[in-house]
Amino acid sequence: MPRTITSFGNDTVKLIRSLRDRKARRETGLFLAEGLRILTEARDSGLLPEIIAFAPAGAAHPLAAEIIAATEAAGGDAIETTPDILAKMSGKDNPGLILGAYRQPATDLAAIDRSAAPLWIVAQALRDPGNLGTILRTGDATGAGGLILIDDCADPYSVEAVRASMGAVFTQAVGTATWDEFVAWLRAGPGQLVGTSLRTDSDYLDATYEAPCFLLIGNESRGLPADYENECDLRVKMPMLGRADSLNAAVAAAVIAFQVRASWR
Amino acid sequence: MPRTITSFGNDTVKLIRSLRDRKARRETGLFLAEGLRILTEARDSGLLPEIIAFAPAGAAHPLAAEIIAATEAAGGDAIETTPDILAKMSGKDNPGLILGAYRQPATDLAAIDRSAAPLWIVAQALRDPGNLGTILRTGDATGAGGLILIDDCADPYSVEAVRASMGAVFTQAVGTATWDEFVAWLRAGPGQLVGTSLRTDSDYLDATYEAPCFLLIGNESRGLPADYENECDLRVKMPMLGRADSLNAAVAAAVIAFQVRASWR
Repeated sequence: MPRTITSFGNDTVKLIRSLRDRKARRETGLFLAEGLRILTEARDSGLLPEIIAFAPAGAAHPLAAEIIAATEAAGGDAIETTPDILAKMSGKDNPGLILGAYRQPATDLAAIDRSAAPLWIVAQALRDPGNLGTILRTGDATGAGGLILIDDCADPYSVEAVRASMGAVFTQAVGTATWDEFVAWLRAGPGQLVGTSLRTDSDYLDATYEAPCFLLIGNESRGLPADYENECDLRVKMPMLGRADSLNAAVAAAVIAFQVRASWR
Repeated sequence: MPRTITSFGNDTVKLIRSLRDRKARRETGLFLAEGLRILTEARDSGLLPEIIAFAPAGAAHPLAAEIIAATEAAGGDAIETTPDILAKMSGKDNPGLILGAYRQPATDLAAIDRSAAPLWIVAQALRDPGNLGTILRTGDATGAGGLILIDDCADPYSVEAVRASMGAVFTQAVGTATWDEFVAWLRAGPGQLVGTSLRTDSDYLDATYEAPCFLLIGNESRGLPADYENECDLRVKMPMLGRADSLNAAVAAAVIAFQVRASWR
């Protein structure tokens, strides 16, 4: 049976609320996901929260009831509470009626099986958590295996990234590494490293992509460092017809990822 | 000569600060753009701000000095102030060192010349200003003429949308209309209306796109209403290989816009 919490000062309320901060996420190893759709995505990926909290109306949906029961059966903590306390936990004015605190998976490259998918996305110094979540969502849509984060990226387990991923944070593998670690890992097996570059004539539509293909996306303002670009097996450019001469990083990742899939039809 | 403002309570400071609110933008007809890159984009598009404000360091760049001088020559108000007051105006902790208040252009469809570009993007009930700005930026990159906003969309002149557009708000035409107004306008001239749909077998890679092509993008959570979809001359679907079965609206717009351009090579 779920326990009931009616106090804003309750320790579990404070714990869940703290997960909006990166420091608390690091210390606890947990992260927050909100809304039935994302919790269902997690369950369908075989993952249950360690803590699940919901307002009475949030448990009314059969899927929600199922996930709550499964969480309890697995030894998790199920909490029925008020919409106000739920809003405090999630930090949103209009939170979903259900949320979960999940264990962060290991993100070392050793855990990544490159043969599991023909396409992988690699982001370098990606600073915007919304972009990061959107790239996870695109990875899911294009059948990528996951997202490898290089250098100082936004936290894939931040509330914004999880939300923008629409649940893909549970379906995509996530790795973190320095550039040197990544290159050493990449070169220890098969893999074509593809970067976008202005220093090439190779149009992204004419390039030959080979699985496993690793799409390297640079930082939002600076793009890829020159030596990272030089490491790429293939450099492609996307024609820019306008004046601003730039694309959002998540958009660039998506356009190339879809083209890679299109080229393999 | 620019005038100097050193008081947080100054009326112009308050006016610019108010432009973060939609109501003030509607009442004044102005909107806020920040940073030299975006102000330069505006100038290159022939647009100068009515008010320009900068910290001393912000005027040091030759491009900034040029835009400040041109603004004054055109009768605009140039204000030198402190970084703190600039931060108050922009509402950002780390504002750029220069910002401008611009006149919003007319957004009725009558002002749009469809023959000016082969591609146009049409968004329906798009609620996220970041998505809206990102779509403007993609429109610029793909040589679109502009963005037409149907039903209740985010404000293209909000600070977030302008920022996400990276200046494309100045290079792209923006129209607003009800669905009925839009359809009446569209059908009074040439134009292929293309919508994304799950109710079609037509893959977006195999479709024939015809200029002027109007790409219709639906609301972030609900997609397009069925009767809007039915109005389309062409319905295409994008293959979804993952579990989450959805794409960010700005990503979907970009992938199709780039494919339209690719199909015309």
